Amino acid sequence: MNHYSNIIAEMRNDAADILYKALEAVEPGAAVKRYCRVDGDNLFIGERIYDLVKYKNLFLIGAGKATAPMAAAIEDILGKRVTSGIIIVKYGHVADLDRINLIEAGHPVPDENGQHGTEAILKLVRDAGKDDLVICLISGGGSALTPLPFHGLTLKDKQETIKVLLSCGATIHEINAIRKHTSMIKGGRLARAAYPATLVSLILSDVVGDDLDVIASGPTVPDSSTFSSCMKILQRYNILKKIPETVLNHIEAGASGKVPETPNTDDSAFDKTYNLIIGSNIESLMAAKQKAESLGYKVLVLSSMIEGETRDVAHVHGAIAREIIKTGNPLHPPACILSGGETTVTLTGKGLGGRNQEFALASAIDIAGKNEVVILSGGTDGNDGPTDAAGAFADNFTLKRAGEMGLDPYYFLLNNDSYHFFQKLGDLLMTGATNTNVMDLRIVLVK
Amino acid sequence: MNHYSNIIAEMRNDAADILYKALEAVEPGAAVKRYCRVDGDNLFIGERIYDLVKYKNLFLIGAGKATAPMAAAIEDILGKRVTSGIIIVKYGHVADLDRINLIEAGHPVPDENGQHGTEAILKLVRDAGKDDLVICLISGGGSALTPLPFHGLTLKDKQETIKVLLSCGATIHEINAIRKHTSMIKGGRLARAAYPATLVSLILSDVVGDDLDVIASGPTVPDSSTFSSCMKILQRYNILKKIPETVLNHIEAGASGKVPETPNTDDSAFDKTYNLIIGSNIESLMAAKQKAESLGYKVLVLSSMIEGETRDVAHVHGAIAREIIKTGNPLHPPACILSGGETTVTLTGKGLGGRNQEFALASAIDIAGKNEVVILSGGTDGNDGPTDAAGAFADNFTLKRAGEMGLDPYYFLLNNDSYHFFQKLGDLLMTGATNTNVMDLRIVLVK
Repeated sequence: MNHYSNIIAEMRNDAADILYKALEAVEPGAAVKRYCRVDGDNLFIGERIYDLVKYKNLFLIGAGKATAPMAAAIEDILGKRVTSGIIIVKYGHVADLDRINLIEAGHPVPDENGQHGTEAILKLVRDAGKDDLVICLISGGGSALTPLPFHGLTLKDKQETIKVLLSCGATIHEINAIRKHTSMIKGGRLARAAYPATLVSLILSDVVGDDLDVIASGPTVPDSSTFSSCMKILQRYNILKKIPETVLNHIEAGASGKVPETPNTDDSAFDKTYNLIIGSNIESLMAAKQKAESLGYKVLVLSSMIEGETRDVAHVHGAIAREIIKTGNPLHPPACILSGGETTVTLTGKGLGGRNQEFALASAIDIAGKNEVVILSGGTDGNDGPTDAAGAFADNFTLKRAGEMGLDPYYFLLNNDSYHFFQKLGDLLMTGATNTNVMDLRIVLVK
Repeated sequence: MNHYSNIIAEMRNDAADILYKALEAVEPGAAVKRYCRVDGDNLFIGERIYDLVKYKNLFLIGAGKATAPMAAAIEDILGKRVTSGIIIVKYGHVADLDRINLIEAGHPVPDENGQHGTEAILKLVRDAGKDDLVICLISGGGSALTPLPFHGLTLKDKQETIKVLLSCGATIHEINAIRKHTSMIKGGRLARAAYPATLVSLILSDVVGDDLDVIASGPTVPDSSTFSSCMKILQRYNILKKIPETVLNHIEAGASGKVPETPNTDDSAFDKTYNLIIGSNIESLMAAKQKAESLGYKVLVLSSMIEGETRDVAHVHGAIAREIIKTGNPLHPPACILSGGETTVTLTGKGLGGRNQEFALASAIDIAGKNEVVILSGGTDGNDGPTDAAGAFADNFTLKRAGEMGLDPYYFLLNNDSYHFFQKLGDLLMTGATNTNVMDLRIVLVK
């Protein structure tokens, strides 16, 4: 199947090597161990030191797809000092744990396992006293895995509300404001519940910009949104009558001060809370940069915060590649452009694909030609959209090879069917589940 | 109105200075003079030398919005050596010319003046003999200004065809393939008509990538598209029955060899033709780079070939600005990111605006915050969309100032009403008509 040149074959290997190095840097267990260590009775976490003698109990809690290896790392570091704990993970995302209760639950669609697990976590932190230390592990998926509706609301109410918000074009920030205000633990309410215990949150970021209050809807982080801002969101998208009445009543009640607000920065709970990001997209990009440089590329890290419609973002990357070829701007070849973040795909067809595969497909069209360009786009969780691929490779010969096989790239793009396009070409990136998630990585190599 | 800080005021001045320097570099007359000079009887054009003694007549022809100052420059350089000439410009885009007949015509909607002017140009070059030199001036708008339908077709036929193509989502390359195959002069047919005269084309590029065969539909450039590829385009977008029957019949006849093809690279006409780009987006970007560096910014020229949906392209630029602030990638502040090209706007509202103003509006949302960022996006022709503005300024305080005035940026963006948003803020960029056009420039300054 290798109709591409030796140079391209080598560049594809380079791209894969760069990607795997980037993934290594954000492996959840390694990330925990990079930021936490015990020396005698001192627990070093980031810039802080916790004297373990001072604490009666050390509880571990957490939620997110990557929290099993994170919890295993904590057990490695703290061993029997861990009193007990509960973490909630996505089905199958497990690890062997000694002292911590691992609960598997539904993701992305929340289920009862998640709800019961969250109730158990809430009970655990409420019972924790001022002489206890609670370590909280948070990663992507933590929001869906902790579905505990506020008193008077049901899981179904929340799900229907999110569905309406998703379909009306609300931003992730807006959706999270509503999530926080209909939840028992999100938007800092978990930190509030843990008070007066000491709380440390170790966070693997899966959101653009690494905003603490967005990751898993910020259960241990002050919330700047309010019931009033939630009302404005419902009004902005004209969905007051589309969401369940119970949810509307709850938000209206909150806006009139009849339901306690989510805690903001002034809340005393945050005096005893420390939130620390231990892994994020930019860290993986910097690891990728180092690897690419070692392979002889001049490297430009564009941004870890790339958002927007996938094919348009691909156009920008393609334009940079073509400028490198034509004028040596912004870098002379051999050049490597790296970017991260999470784009969106507006569906126009019914095919199979994901952000990364669609990025590769749109890029393939832009970089077709005689100059050597290889593009690899991959989801760091190993799971691009509803497919078993993490992403795909595109190069300057992709269109030519597709043409020889009778595949029309424009048709596949129009049908959002990037998976079948790259499957037929043998150009899917298959990493398997990586157990981490710091969004997507894009690698553009130009020789 | 200056609610922004002194630093921002200074950065806005810097951005304007950078933009004007970029415009200066592609002023059409200056561009001609940079590439053409006479020394004795030798006419130096780019890398070539033409011995003027050898030529009986020197004719000047041209079409495009910027060709009046280009023609004036040629008259300055060659004076009485110019036998005669005809150029077609957009209404009002005039200059004082001594020996050259200037015809004003319709743009972007072609009209009869354009048609008659093109007929006159065609007659002039057909009459030119093998000992004559024809200098042809081409700039953006040249395509609409030279509407001479192929025998048997009417202007209305062509216009309806383009309308169908525009509305079905065909690319500029696809539209141009059809344009060339329904025209008497496009797709190299002008060069064919001028043969055996010697032909020199001086081209100011207004298209992404500066492809010679795309600018003004390449009247003096070999055409790689064919009647058969035109048929495929009509089939791809399923518009065989939507375009006028005369046009379909013409293209079908061409595809069966019954109409002469546009000349390709093998055509002998191109042995006597020299095409030279004298101004383009990348040249203006490099001038902008020099100016920005002189103002103390570290500068990254991203690409002169940026295409895609405007707001998504803005997201990418915003993401780079935020990364500069957060991690110093790809540059440490004070940083300047420059890009060029031409984006598209998919209309969702009925407001007033243009690509550049919409870019600034979408950017304003992304860069809102406390760190100093200034973004200036401007069309090099001074005319952004159907407005009297060239573009607009956005900075990190734009959203705050808009909020104080009760303006909701999301609403204006949804309504494609960027003009009124920035008009109210006093943040429109008003350059007046510049008489040049090398697409758009975007300047992102971060301190």
